[in-house]
Amino acid sequence: MRSREVVLLSGGVILGMESVEVDARVGWVGVVEGRIEMVSFDEAEAESFRQRYEQVKEVDCRGRVVMPGLINTHCHISMTLMRNYADDHELMDWLNNYIWPFEALQSDEDIAAGARLGVAELLLGGCTTFVDMYWNEWVIAQVVKQMGGRAHLCEAVLDGRESLFVEGLVKLVAEASECDRVSCGVGPHAPYTCSPETMKLAKTQADKYGIAYTIHLSETDGERAMIEERYGCSPLDYVERAGMLNEQMILAHTIHVTDEEIERIAKSGASVAHNPQSNMKLASGVAPVAKMMRQGVNCTVATDGACSNNDLDMWDEMRSASMLQRVVERDPMALKAYEVLRMATYGAAKALGRSDLGVVKEGAVADIVIVDL
Amino acid sequence: MRSREVVLLSGGVILGMESVEVDARVGWVGVVEGRIEMVSFDEAEAESFRQRYEQVKEVDCRGRVVMPGLINTHCHISMTLMRNYADDHELMDWLNNYIWPFEALQSDEDIAAGARLGVAELLLGGCTTFVDMYWNEWVIAQVVKQMGGRAHLCEAVLDGRESLFVEGLVKLVAEASECDRVSCGVGPHAPYTCSPETMKLAKTQADKYGIAYTIHLSETDGERAMIEERYGCSPLDYVERAGMLNEQMILAHTIHVTDEEIERIAKSGASVAHNPQSNMKLASGVAPVAKMMRQGVNCTVATDGACSNNDLDMWDEMRSASMLQRVVERDPMALKAYEVLRMATYGAAKALGRSDLGVVKEGAVADIVIVDL
Repeated sequence: MRSREVVLLSGGVILGMESVEVDARVGWVGVVEGRIEMVSFDEAEAESFRQRYEQVKEVDCRGRVVMPGLINTHCHISMTLMRNYADDHELMDWLNNYIWPFEALQSDEDIAAGARLGVAELLLGGCTTFVDMYWNEWVIAQVVKQMGGRAHLCEAVLDGRESLFVEGLVKLVAEASECDRVSCGVGPHAPYTCSPETMKLAKTQADKYGIAYTIHLSETDGERAMIEERYGCSPLDYVERAGMLNEQMILAHTIHVTDEEIERIAKSGASVAHNPQSNMKLASGVAPVAKMMRQGVNCTVATDGACSNNDLDMWDEMRSASMLQRVVERDPMALKAYEVLRMATYGAAKALGRSDLGVVKEGAVADIVIVDL
Repeated sequence: MRSREVVLLSGGVILGMESVEVDARVGWVGVVEGRIEMVSFDEAEAESFRQRYEQVKEVDCRGRVVMPGLINTHCHISMTLMRNYADDHELMDWLNNYIWPFEALQSDEDIAAGARLGVAELLLGGCTTFVDMYWNEWVIAQVVKQMGGRAHLCEAVLDGRESLFVEGLVKLVAEASECDRVSCGVGPHAPYTCSPETMKLAKTQADKYGIAYTIHLSETDGERAMIEERYGCSPLDYVERAGMLNEQMILAHTIHVTDEEIERIAKSGASVAHNPQSNMKLASGVAPVAKMMRQGVNCTVATDGACSNNDLDMWDEMRSASMLQRVVERDPMALKAYEVLRMATYGAAKALGRSDLGVVKEGAVADIVIVDL
């Protein structure tokens, strides 16, 4: 929504996503300069909103759902160029022998091209915010500035790329400071690709700029074994030792975790980005999302990169999240439709530390999607 | 494709589906009066096909895949009217308290309306043949005749509906005899809804008309326990005792089966209709499809009714089939893309006892879909 505009969304079914149970009522949403000024279920209030402003653009939303834009909490947007590349492989083989060699050849222009394709796919699919982990995120920041939508971009680091990371982060922070739709963070890639020194660097840089972090965590049981062998601890312990298990952290995947670890994640305030389709495609395992939610972990939904999915369709991802939990928990109520929708909006905004996002309420940003029923 | 027509599909990537490994080559497919007369990878042969007929309608298929239409081996097409009705329930609760009470109120016109909606969805989604189980299938036969596509319609029977079944079957057989796109069979609903007498009736009627059969089998572990208690045998034993475990049978779901039972299914020549999304949605369990295929069972893919899915999208169903087997088997090669495509074409045609369907080869029916890449 362009700023300066005054818009009235009329007669749609409003799904605000703040309430824990489904609350779907016909109503009106008034937007002024990109912020929600009014949410009302009373036609008289809508009329007084119309009177209050000179030029109100009214959008007929009857028969449609008016809801917050979806938020994809774990993505590698530029990998959209690699859609369907190297299907049918196991994670480590896939990374070592296909993805990383391909990525080594990428220019900034390739990264921008992949990002443009990905942002277009997300926006067309009703996803208005994404969290990204990649290198040269400043390039992706420019794409988001140009194309629209909101992004939380995390500059990736892994062993051997420390100085590129520090340089990239400088550029990213500069780009982000120029656009209120772009925020930034750091992304230590994973416990198995980041030494304790690299983890420390990531944390120091995050603290320097006062920004948040994300990491791939416990994606395979091979990873658990590897970290256990190298450091005598679990991947989660490793993140905790680095001082990053807190509400600033989004843990991606988080499949192979013990009950005790789930409890620790819940207490820490860290969020989990659940990537059901990627986890299925790469045969990584099924994250215990229903259990994590029961134990109080803030869980969200994400597509991962298009290369391990093979799309950026958040609707299909939410569907898979619900379907997969049901069959694994052998309980058709394990993750209901509304719950998963709430994970992908309200929960995701919480993961980003934002109470004015992922929700249709007065004062929130007007990242609204209108869904034709 | 209308009969009398001569059509040349030119320059597409032909996926014939007969070969076990991917065979994708650019070629030409010549169709005469609804049958494939030529499949060639040689432009000269295409030219001589053009010369052979007076009026050849040529379709430019460059950049597209030319492949057999998908075959949905287990559906309740009229339930498309009930899409999204009663989500988030367990199978028995869902059937007893929602679906059956709803269905009891349905008129023939309702059944036809649901079928029209379903057939449209299937055809638009590249699915050219479906196997159906419902009552009053003669009504659905009329819809298929009118709308196009191919259907194998199985008149359902369960305890208490025996005479309605016999009457319905008479009408169905008559309708099917008038249209070469419609074939028919009988559908004893499930071991837990059909007494031994009802099973016997189903078998007798099938033999009377020389037609095939389908049944819901071992969909839940509750079903296994129930049949064990009632009859002292497994659901599969029950079907075998009724004389219906043979190549005429399509077993739908087939989730809770032992290794020994899988071996017996393989030996019998019966096929399995795998419904991954329905099994996920209703939390019924994950069918051991990869294992069944390794042991030689002919497995196919199906959506089930839209009410337990919630759509009739065979592409998404194939994707779920592949994704789910990978994660459950913890093997990203458990069910590859091409394998599942072959299940939904070649394997499904085999389940229907047809070697001239589900395949792009000379002599086969021209149920071809052209997929834009």
